[in-house]
Amino acid sequence: MVESWVNSAERIGVDLHLELSGPGGRRAALIRALREAVRSGRLAPGTRLPPYRSLAADLGVARNTVADAYAELVAEGWLTARQGSGTRVAMGVPSAPPGQRGRAQPPRRPGRVPRKAPVRAHGPRHDLTQGTPDASAFPRTAWSAAYRRALQAAPSEAFGPGDPAGRRELREALSEYLARARGVRSEPDRIVVCSGFAHALRLLFGQGGGGVLRGPLAVEAYGLGFHRELLATAGVRTVPLPLDEHGARVDALGRERAVLLTPAHQFPTGGPLHPERRAAVIDWARAREAVVVEDDYDGEFRYDRRPVGALQGLDPERVIHIGSVSKSLSPALRLGWMVLPERHVGPVLAAKGEREAWASVLDQLALADFLVSGSYDRHVRRMRQCYRRRRDRLVAALAAHAPHIEVTGIAAGLHAVLRLPPGTERSAVKAAAWQGVALDGLAAFRHPGTQMPAPDGLVVGYATPPEHAYGAALEALCEVLPPA
Amino acid sequence: MVESWVNSAERIGVDLHLELSGPGGRRAALIRALREAVRSGRLAPGTRLPPYRSLAADLGVARNTVADAYAELVAEGWLTARQGSGTRVAMGVPSAPPGQRGRAQPPRRPGRVPRKAPVRAHGPRHDLTQGTPDASAFPRTAWSAAYRRALQAAPSEAFGPGDPAGRRELREALSEYLARARGVRSEPDRIVVCSGFAHALRLLFGQGGGGVLRGPLAVEAYGLGFHRELLATAGVRTVPLPLDEHGARVDALGRERAVLLTPAHQFPTGGPLHPERRAAVIDWARAREAVVVEDDYDGEFRYDRRPVGALQGLDPERVIHIGSVSKSLSPALRLGWMVLPERHVGPVLAAKGEREAWASVLDQLALADFLVSGSYDRHVRRMRQCYRRRRDRLVAALAAHAPHIEVTGIAAGLHAVLRLPPGTERSAVKAAAWQGVALDGLAAFRHPGTQMPAPDGLVVGYATPPEHAYGAALEALCEVLPPA
Repeated sequence: MVESWVNSAERIGVDLHLELSGPGGRRAALIRALREAVRSGRLAPGTRLPPYRSLAADLGVARNTVADAYAELVAEGWLTARQGSGTRVAMGVPSAPPGQRGRAQPPRRPGRVPRKAPVRAHGPRHDLTQGTPDASAFPRTAWSAAYRRALQAAPSEAFGPGDPAGRRELREALSEYLARARGVRSEPDRIVVCSGFAHALRLLFGQGGGGVLRGPLAVEAYGLGFHRELLATAGVRTVPLPLDEHGARVDALGRERAVLLTPAHQFPTGGPLHPERRAAVIDWARAREAVVVEDDYDGEFRYDRRPVGALQGLDPERVIHIGSVSKSLSPALRLGWMVLPERHVGPVLAAKGEREAWASVLDQLALADFLVSGSYDRHVRRMRQCYRRRRDRLVAALAAHAPHIEVTGIAAGLHAVLRLPPGTERSAVKAAAWQGVALDGLAAFRHPGTQMPAPDGLVVGYATPPEHAYGAALEALCEVLPPA
Repeated sequence: MVESWVNSAERIGVDLHLELSGPGGRRAALIRALREAVRSGRLAPGTRLPPYRSLAADLGVARNTVADAYAELVAEGWLTARQGSGTRVAMGVPSAPPGQRGRAQPPRRPGRVPRKAPVRAHGPRHDLTQGTPDASAFPRTAWSAAYRRALQAAPSEAFGPGDPAGRRELREALSEYLARARGVRSEPDRIVVCSGFAHALRLLFGQGGGGVLRGPLAVEAYGLGFHRELLATAGVRTVPLPLDEHGARVDALGRERAVLLTPAHQFPTGGPLHPERRAAVIDWARAREAVVVEDDYDGEFRYDRRPVGALQGLDPERVIHIGSVSKSLSPALRLGWMVLPERHVGPVLAAKGEREAWASVLDQLALADFLVSGSYDRHVRRMRQCYRRRRDRLVAALAAHAPHIEVTGIAAGLHAVLRLPPGTERSAVKAAAWQGVALDGLAAFRHPGTQMPAPDGLVVGYATPPEHAYGAALEALCEVLPPA
């Protein structure tokens, strides 16, 4: 059996055949083939591998076979995996000396039992993928203090089985905060705590179609592949909505039962949904008795203009508002929330189960204190300043070294989109990988079913590098951009 | 007994006496008095109640008594609690129309779908259901200290996206602890952190049959219905194994692909699996290339004999060992672990996703510190003493007031089984409910497909009531038992 993923490979800029042969089934064969491709240098460090789905389709194997193979190679240290940025060849993997024909050895990490790389352990030198805040800026002292205060103040029952809606202290604090900061029309009884956006999607759309909402679900033509995969696994068909300079073309909505939007800051292209379209999508939802799922993933971070309020404020009975602390504080906390129309509260709680099985109740209490004490606002304001400066440095670096590159989507959020000349995205992403700069092209976020034109561009996350490393990351970025 | 909080009341501008009188202990009396004060309008909506400490001092009761009373009334909707703003009388609480003498009704929370009450919100007076440790015994100070230390010591990357295997610090600490305390043969790379036993089951058996293991799955004829339901939802057929005085009849195992056991302390009947059967089930698994899933839910709590080691120690490649802190510390933490055969590590990680989406990384770090610093051992030893005393009090109370009732399953764990005369279980459970005693009969745990005889019995959890309420709970229990 010899099969190839030339098609996928072309899309990601790698000319490669994979030979699935030898003993032990397809999974073992795929692991061997990928390992050999990395070891031999045919897959360069930093190269992004195709999504499970497309490689599985190309090779004619099950999606789980690809997932298992990737996981195994991540565990062995050959690959690294990050949500939203996909699976990549690890940096620092030694290629084979000439003549070596023995079994490929995974790279040794010092002081570590050889198995299971931590996520990003062998990350590239400069991480400009989107999606993660500056981990070095986590407010350790203020958070620890909130945690200690919250634990001391908590009633005993807080240490028993948890209410699946989440701690009331947190829902009250969130209700107040979201109303004040994001224009959400909420009350504590409309809020259900969860462990992040993906958990919220799982609760809403269930597995095997057993969720609270039904598909088909309209989604933006550009978005996180991870979310599309999660929905596909749950048996939910997604229908791509084209984007233009005013955001998602909600006039293209038809008979879908729900639409998933990033209205404050389209992910990844970066603009807010035009006010007329905000109104139009609410009208559509009312007329169709449909639901708008609002992914407010970075609504706190807006730099130049008045913040765009939550779409939910237009009609709390037609919009499910979802947020989390993953961008504002840390993805390590696993805390998020859904603000639900009244009719969805009961079904979502039923989907969650009789007791809290996911979100740490003690972290919930700490977040409540962190919000009520004003620490959350202080942290967000501080990080807004920090990220605004980073954005300004990005814009300045490009103006100085690549003035022909247009930067868009910079009014808000933790990433920008660099528009590239047609046909240059693939080679730019490849060049970046070779230079140890991890970032994604727009193609990585494109819904496979969309017909809209495919602009060339790079999605540059500027929040992840620690402060001291940001300047070097920008220099490296400028070097991999296509010339004028 | 008539006591007042005039002093506190003056400080907060309310002139009021509270009368602590009537049956059921001070906590119940305080709840009644506060409820009546709100209902009658003597405490106006929005009024701030005194802090626990000062009301406790004024009334000469324990601080926890006040905390529990407030929590109960918050759960019922009479009061609202917010960190930083204290506990207040809820808005919109209707005061009684003149002449009303019925039981006060809690206010409806606006905009809330009537649904299942949150766990224990409207709980019975005495909670003798199994499964939850004493929430009032959570080691707040030691845990907060571990959390603070762990956060200060953590590298920055800990606040970024998490490794789905779990933090290495925690896996190393667990590996050492489980080897020492439970005889588990582990290493950190065999451990995957999860959010509790149910999460582990979901990862192993997946949804729609897409999991790491396949059914049919043999289970003990008596066990948690919640687990059976979860497996059924995932499309896994369960085959009941009969139980006898030596535990599960593993000789009845046939062509199943896996078996789920509680070898240290059969749940709920309470005995350990006989040593010969421990060996036999391993032989079966080896011969069939099957897997034993070991639910070590309360292995730390053994009172009279040498602890029964984990079955996993007999063959780490044939047993998946699963544990959590839900019994030993608190179900509020949502932390558990799986110790896996090597071949299952990759697939379980693939099922979990590319990064940690569930268990709080910060709580993971805190647990690692809690284990390494010896705080976990100290807490477990302290609770073992406490629960052993409770078990002894249960046995003594039954010997004194119901000597005809046999108590079994008392060598370990947080619950006992009271054997009842044939045909009396249903009426005993019903009588208990009428008397405000929550507990379950054995029938609630019975696999619907089993053919084994159905003994009558009550499953009495003795860990849940706070210490001060345990005596009253035992008295109430003895009153609902069938006569000799």
